[in-house]
Amino acid sequence: MELNKEALKNLDRISRIKIMNSVSGIKPANLIATISNDGVTNVAVFSSVVHLGSDPALLGFILRPTGDVPRNTYNNILENKSYTINHIHPEFVEKAHYTSAKFDENISEFERCGLTEEYIEECKAPFVKESSFKMGMLFKEAIDIKLNGTILVIGEIQHLVLPAAELDKNHINLEYTDSVGISGLNSYYSLKKIADYPYARVNEVPDFK
Amino acid sequence: MELNKEALKNLDRISRIKIMNSVSGIKPANLIATISNDGVTNVAVFSSVVHLGSDPALLGFILRPTGDVPRNTYNNILENKSYTINHIHPEFVEKAHYTSAKFDENISEFERCGLTEEYIEECKAPFVKESSFKMGMLFKEAIDIKLNGTILVIGEIQHLVLPAAELDKNHINLEYTDSVGISGLNSYYSLKKIADYPYARVNEVPDFK
Repeated sequence: MELNKEALKNLDRISRIKIMNSVSGIKPANLIATISNDGVTNVAVFSSVVHLGSDPALLGFILRPTGDVPRNTYNNILENKSYTINHIHPEFVEKAHYTSAKFDENISEFERCGLTEEYIEECKAPFVKESSFKMGMLFKEAIDIKLNGTILVIGEIQHLVLPAAELDKNHINLEYTDSVGISGLNSYYSLKKIADYPYARVNEVPDFK
Repeated sequence: MELNKEALKNLDRISRIKIMNSVSGIKPANLIATISNDGVTNVAVFSSVVHLGSDPALLGFILRPTGDVPRNTYNNILENKSYTINHIHPEFVEKAHYTSAKFDENISEFERCGLTEEYIEECKAPFVKESSFKMGMLFKEAIDIKLNGTILVIGEIQHLVLPAAELDKNHINLEYTDSVGISGLNSYYSLKKIADYPYARVNEVPDFK
């Protein structure tokens, strides 16, 4: 089935949102957690975390336009530069999903959605205790994307927690870490590894002809 | 297992690259294809395609620093503003992987890796025929990320091809479209849907306490 520019333009609003949120392919399922200087915590599901570089270790994520809804996550990050990114696992995927509801600013999604705050000395923002693969982040930069009013928020990894067996192999298997993927706005997927290939060197490329 | 800032700093280069390319979670497996004004085609695997917005329908992807390696993909996009994003499926995941080798500029990865170019009138760049879920893109903007010299390339979806059964349901199941995920630099995953939840409204959030 093909949709040309005209057909894409004529999609109704809901169809457009559902389709356009799915076409990039599978997205990582993460909870981003923060705390305000008043001590109110916030946690919300994000599917837009993207690898930007390994040295320095930078991750980005995309924030919807300001003015749309109150953005506690972003305000907290600007206040104290600290946030955490926590992989979602199948056991708490439903709780994680409902953090996307637009709760009042003074309500912590941790409490309302049955998730547990966990703190370490080096990181002001709370981690999600239920997650076994998570990172403490230091805010570095926010880049405005003027085309549609979104913001690319960039941070550096300060602290990394993950299952020891995975790290030992120096080769992290997301099937064993039980990490979850998202498509669209509300579908969640488990992962099954189907292939590993070596680093691709020109003189080692198989003869595919 | 925990790695604090000091431990992260002391990782050897290869371990750092492998780990840091995995921590964001599952990444979408896409082939981005272009053509130069001289008619030389180019196709390469990218794991950084990210949804930026539905109206206009914008997708971004991250390019490594200029000067690192010749970047045919980017040069071609700047030349004629056209590129395609094509989901990778299990049947050609090995061919897709080897497009990441650093072939000479005048060699087309389509030919060398056994993939097939496919053209439509509305799009100058080639699609990957083997993919059943793909998009023709119009380049809109390149944003420099000064922190590490990467570039966020943004384009608007002009043309969308996907399995009709998926579109009809208005709810695209990436398990049925046989779309693939990536972790790190060289591990590929199939997807299995484990849950769908409704749009999260505050007054419909289950009692998780």
